[in-house]
Amino acid sequence: MVILTLNCGSSSAKYQVYDWVNKDILAVGVVERIGLEYSTIEHKANGKEEYHAEFSSPTHKEAIELIIRMLLDDEYGVISDLKEIGAVGHRVLHGGEVFKQSALVTDEVIEQLKKVIHLGPLHMPANIMGIEAARKAMPSVPQAIILDTAWHQTMPEEAFMYAVPYEWYTDYNVRRYGFHGTSHLYCAKRAAVLLGKKNEDTNVIICHIGNGASISAVKNGVCIDTSMGLTPLEGLIMGSRSGDIDPAIIPYMMETTGMSAKEMDTVLNKKSGLIGLCGKSDRRDVLKASKEGDKKAALAIKMETRRITKYIGGYATLFGGNLDAIIFTAGVGEMAPHIRLGACQGLEAIGAKLDEHKNKVCFSRNGEFEINTDDSKVKILVIPTDEELVMTEDAYALMTGTYDVHTNFHYTFEDKDYVNKSRELALQKDIAKDPELATILVKQR
Amino acid sequence: MVILTLNCGSSSAKYQVYDWVNKDILAVGVVERIGLEYSTIEHKANGKEEYHAEFSSPTHKEAIELIIRMLLDDEYGVISDLKEIGAVGHRVLHGGEVFKQSALVTDEVIEQLKKVIHLGPLHMPANIMGIEAARKAMPSVPQAIILDTAWHQTMPEEAFMYAVPYEWYTDYNVRRYGFHGTSHLYCAKRAAVLLGKKNEDTNVIICHIGNGASISAVKNGVCIDTSMGLTPLEGLIMGSRSGDIDPAIIPYMMETTGMSAKEMDTVLNKKSGLIGLCGKSDRRDVLKASKEGDKKAALAIKMETRRITKYIGGYATLFGGNLDAIIFTAGVGEMAPHIRLGACQGLEAIGAKLDEHKNKVCFSRNGEFEINTDDSKVKILVIPTDEELVMTEDAYALMTGTYDVHTNFHYTFEDKDYVNKSRELALQKDIAKDPELATILVKQR
Repeated sequence: MVILTLNCGSSSAKYQVYDWVNKDILAVGVVERIGLEYSTIEHKANGKEEYHAEFSSPTHKEAIELIIRMLLDDEYGVISDLKEIGAVGHRVLHGGEVFKQSALVTDEVIEQLKKVIHLGPLHMPANIMGIEAARKAMPSVPQAIILDTAWHQTMPEEAFMYAVPYEWYTDYNVRRYGFHGTSHLYCAKRAAVLLGKKNEDTNVIICHIGNGASISAVKNGVCIDTSMGLTPLEGLIMGSRSGDIDPAIIPYMMETTGMSAKEMDTVLNKKSGLIGLCGKSDRRDVLKASKEGDKKAALAIKMETRRITKYIGGYATLFGGNLDAIIFTAGVGEMAPHIRLGACQGLEAIGAKLDEHKNKVCFSRNGEFEINTDDSKVKILVIPTDEELVMTEDAYALMTGTYDVHTNFHYTFEDKDYVNKSRELALQKDIAKDPELATILVKQR
Repeated sequence: MVILTLNCGSSSAKYQVYDWVNKDILAVGVVERIGLEYSTIEHKANGKEEYHAEFSSPTHKEAIELIIRMLLDDEYGVISDLKEIGAVGHRVLHGGEVFKQSALVTDEVIEQLKKVIHLGPLHMPANIMGIEAARKAMPSVPQAIILDTAWHQTMPEEAFMYAVPYEWYTDYNVRRYGFHGTSHLYCAKRAAVLLGKKNEDTNVIICHIGNGASISAVKNGVCIDTSMGLTPLEGLIMGSRSGDIDPAIIPYMMETTGMSAKEMDTVLNKKSGLIGLCGKSDRRDVLKASKEGDKKAALAIKMETRRITKYIGGYATLFGGNLDAIIFTAGVGEMAPHIRLGACQGLEAIGAKLDEHKNKVCFSRNGEFEINTDDSKVKILVIPTDEELVMTEDAYALMTGTYDVHTNFHYTFEDKDYVNKSRELALQKDIAKDPELATILVKQR
């Protein structure tokens, strides 16, 4: 039996097929340019050649039908019958306050999701279209939703409320929701394992830094604060998003330039952040430009890392003196030593000291590493995230009726001797390239 | 000789007359309701009865003429000839990037101020009107401007830039300016005295918390970051201002409700913050309501203090482990132990421990107090601010040609044995009421 996970964006659909019995990934792929004049698919099955093609996919329905054909394909496929798919897990951006955990899809669930479309107008229609297309294509397969916001629903009121007119909350759902929840969940639980602690005793700050980026504070194993808010715009400086700004800039610039609210939203989401500062959003490009003397790129790096540092310091106060570790994860968190270096400047203030050499060595997405100095009170860990695995396990558990909210649920990756099979081989290759990597692998206790 | 200081708001004009020779305040007062059907004046001269009256003041011109008449008045006045006024110091909200320090008013200076009216559309017209009215009324008296933004001009680029399109900075002056600069300056320099350090060795975080509120990080005696931004809206949760929110809330609520950019600006500035959360902005009212079981008021206190705590933690990282002290100042910072208590929760994370008993005892605006525990690595001080004194000294120094930017200038209150005469007597009265106050007075070294 396999579990299929689907992540439908506004014009894309990513998928992964997971062999539940052997606990291994069988295939991954992505359909892009959905709704444009032609669409593309990239498909990679274990031990087989990568497959690329162009085809027509006016909506997510055709994309999902193609994905199913690929999975069943004689040459590139990984299953021989749709019945092998035990369950499908759909990534959904926004669950409002309704969804505090993953759920099986029913007509009622879809109605509830439709009620919060306004909270994620760019992503939610695609998310819902993906679910409906998958239901039609696989009517007998249980479908589950795994929400980016669910993990953060444990935040206390003082963390999720904004100091705006109270009725904006009651009448318009304006509050902090937080995103990247699946990733924060995975890292929090892995951190507990790596620290040798129970979840309910684990205090960590998790920096999920990719093109989008968010930080969360996890106290006693549950989220108590996070940097993204009503939408994924708030908080850190991201690839193309501004993160925090003086809110008054918005009416000021609208009045000054005549921009509409929608245009302003687009500029802050798509043309700000690193792109706005230096014209580049890929951290490798920004670093390269900075090294070549581009002052705006250098400024962008300073600003991005300073913002992370300040968030970490701010969140550290939520633990008093009892913070166990700071976690870096996601593309940039895992693979950009210069961002981690900048972000850890000054963290001596909260008892965390980066080992600069270990940090430089730490350049792999396939292992879990400890990069603090030996005398650092607070550990600094790099944990490659695995959102698909959380989605897979939630979907499986929902299908079998064994699912429960994360505080009562035990994931396979919470086992002391859990090994990520698909990464194990890659890690050995990484270590072969740089043997020093082995020296910074977290020693589990 | 006396120095007159003027602080013209949109419908008010506050003033103070300072006896330069005897270093004492001679009179304070305020004209309110300027531009309305009738205006009021409250005037209090040292050793004389308070004077209240209604009169007509369609513009700031009439208000300033009335203030001058009051100062010269046989019964309530404090001078007998306008020639006794050596200089006038005007508080000005916004100096853009032009003014990095106080300046003598010239036609050119007024032109420069007019160029940044758009950065403070509510305050700047009144500020400028006040200057022009005072010049007309006292043509032979030197007039000086003291800017709320000047102190913060030492911030590095990575602190003052926003991650928005770069041309918003170059074309529209969008950057962090910071406000309450005169208060932050005073507290930073007093802190150095109280800590027995040179300015250039002093590292403090200053929490100016009044109805408006801002925090600044002062490293080696100069400002390196602050919470207010392009405007005074950003940062902390204030009496009626939201402080930081997800910027996307603005386009979302504009689209949802049809509010205009101007209306949105007004809501965030006037109907948000504590008012928005619980309908009250005076911290005493909020505390009372909270004690009486008002859950929204209790939430508002938690949110206000949590925001302060997180800012302090964030700024602490800018000093590595070398933070000397956290300073509380302004109405709330000086007189609201429950806000200080909430704000200091969890600061053990950065080595600062509040002594809860000392904090409770600390309830006076007339002395400088130390309220940390004896074993606290970072001190926690309460310093009553004195913006008028900074304005007075700047105006005097500008008049006599001895002024220089604050890093090169020595204020009287930087003397080890400086005593604030007008507060000394009041402090003795406060101590008479609560003798324990004397035990928490800062011991200067």
